[in-house]
Amino acid sequence: MKLTQAQLEQFDRDGYLFFPALFSRPEIQVLADAVPGLYAQRRPENVREKTGDVVRTNFAAHLYSAPFARLARHPRMVRPIEAIFGEQVYMHQFKINGKAAFDGDVWQWHQDYGTWKNDDLMPEARAMNVAIFLDDVNEFNGPLMFIPGSHKLGVLDAEHDTSTTSYPLWTINHDTIAKLVERGGIVAPKGAAGSMILFHGCLVHASTSNLSPWNRVSVYLSLCAVSNHIRRFKRPGYIAHRDFTPLECLPDDCLLKEYDVPLPWKDGTPAAELRGMLEAA
Amino acid sequence: MKLTQAQLEQFDRDGYLFFPALFSRPEIQVLADAVPGLYAQRRPENVREKTGDVVRTNFAAHLYSAPFARLARHPRMVRPIEAIFGEQVYMHQFKINGKAAFDGDVWQWHQDYGTWKNDDLMPEARAMNVAIFLDDVNEFNGPLMFIPGSHKLGVLDAEHDTSTTSYPLWTINHDTIAKLVERGGIVAPKGAAGSMILFHGCLVHASTSNLSPWNRVSVYLSLCAVSNHIRRFKRPGYIAHRDFTPLECLPDDCLLKEYDVPLPWKDGTPAAELRGMLEAA
Repeated sequence: MKLTQAQLEQFDRDGYLFFPALFSRPEIQVLADAVPGLYAQRRPENVREKTGDVVRTNFAAHLYSAPFARLARHPRMVRPIEAIFGEQVYMHQFKINGKAAFDGDVWQWHQDYGTWKNDDLMPEARAMNVAIFLDDVNEFNGPLMFIPGSHKLGVLDAEHDTSTTSYPLWTINHDTIAKLVERGGIVAPKGAAGSMILFHGCLVHASTSNLSPWNRVSVYLSLCAVSNHIRRFKRPGYIAHRDFTPLECLPDDCLLKEYDVPLPWKDGTPAAELRGMLEAA
Repeated sequence: MKLTQAQLEQFDRDGYLFFPALFSRPEIQVLADAVPGLYAQRRPENVREKTGDVVRTNFAAHLYSAPFARLARHPRMVRPIEAIFGEQVYMHQFKINGKAAFDGDVWQWHQDYGTWKNDDLMPEARAMNVAIFLDDVNEFNGPLMFIPGSHKLGVLDAEHDTSTTSYPLWTINHDTIAKLVERGGIVAPKGAAGSMILFHGCLVHASTSNLSPWNRVSVYLSLCAVSNHIRRFKRPGYIAHRDFTPLECLPDDCLLKEYDVPLPWKDGTPAAELRGMLEAA
C-alpha cells in the first residue's frame, strides 16, 4: 500500500483519492456485523437523527469495539496517510455515520478543518479524512459529494448551522459554493462496500438525504499528524480525541485475525471525556 | 410524435417513458424566461419552501402565462397521451416545481393517483403525469426517482404526511418501498433541459433534496382522460382543475410563434377557485 507519484499529484490537485474495494467483503463483514450492537447501546457516543431513534453518528467505537479498534490500526489506511504527512498520526475523530435507509438526512456543504481549527485549535490542516464504505454506495443512498480542488483555498468563511440537522456544523455560504463548483464541478465516488476515500481536511463536501431502502453506513476517521495535535479541548473527548499517541499498525490481516487491542472505554466513557474544557488538560 | 409499439409496451411494463431533449433549447428558453416573473408574484398559486421565501411549487401558470398556456396545448406532449388513453384529455394539474439550488427539499415516495383518488374522487388512474425539464438534470440536483413496474400494483396504502416538507402528501411506508425496489430497482432519468418524462399515475416516485448550485426547475402536468374527470372539488381549483374541456393542440411550433391563447386568470384567481368544496359544482 504505497502511493504512486501519480496518486500523490492527484491528491494535491483534487484533494482526494478513491480506492475502490480496498477492503474485501469478509473484512468489511467483520465491521458491519459489529454496527448494530454499537447502535443499540445507550451511550453518549450515539447521536440520533432529529426524526427519531435512528442513529446518525456513533463516535469513538475504536475505544470500545475490537473490530473497529483493529481498523483504526490498519496499515492499508494508516500508511498512505503517514506517507502524505511525512510523520506518524493519531486518531483525532472516529465516527460511524448511519445515513440510514429512508431516514438519513443531509449534511450541508462544509470543510472539516473549519471545525478542527475553530473549536479544537488544530494548528494546520494536517489531518486526513478517511471514509470507508460498509455498504455499497450508489447514486441513490446519499453518497459523499466533493468539489475537487476546493481544498486549495484554505479555510473558507462559514456559519455555525445548528438548525438543519441534528449535528451542528460550520457550513459555507451559497455564493462561495456556486463559485467553487463552477471551477471544480462536483464528484461523488461510488463503489462497493470496502472502498476507501482519503480526503483533505479543507476539501468542501456534503451529502444529500438517503430516500432509498439501502443503508449507507460509512466509517469516517480523521487522522492528525502527531506534531499538529489539537491545542484546546472545547469539545467532548469522545468527539475530538485528547490522546495523541501515534497509531501503531497491526499486520495487514488484522480484520480477519483476532489481534489483541486495548479497549479502554469498554465499560463506559470516562467522565472527563464527556465534557468540553476551554483549556487543554 | 407517434409512439412506437415498443414504446407502448415499455410504458405498460415500466410505467414511464423518457424522451431526451424533446424540446429544443430555444423552445425551453421561452418557458424558462417566464418563470422568474411567475415566482415573483404574490398569489396563492405560489407555495414556498418551509425554509423561507424560495418558491417550491407554482400552480396553474397555463391560466395566466402565455408561454405556459401554449405548452399546455403542445402536440408533442398531448398527442402521445391521447394515444395511450384512446381519448381526449384535459388539464387536471399544472405545476412548475422549483427544486431550487441549495434549498430544494425532498419529496417522499408517493403515487399521485393516491391523492387524485382520495381527495378528488378521480374514478380511474387514467391521468398521465408529465415532467418537462427546464434545467439540465443531473445526479446532483435532485432528479425524479422511479421504481419501475410499481404502477402495476394500483393504489398502495399511504399515510398523509404533513410534516416532512411544506406540501402535504400521501406517502408510502418503508416496508412497501423496500419490497418494490427489490423487484424493480430505482431509476432516475437525467438529461438536458427540454427532456420529457411521461409516467403513470400509480408509478411510485420521489426526489431527494437539491444541495447543488444548479436549479432544477421542471414543469409537472397531469392530463386526465376527459371521461375520467374528477367527481369532487375538495381541493382548491388552482390545484385540481374543474374545467374538463378537452385540450385542443396548437401547431408544433407553438412555443416559438405567438399563437393566441386564453388567459382567464391573468388578472387574478377567481374566488371560487381558491376554496375547496365537498361537492362538485
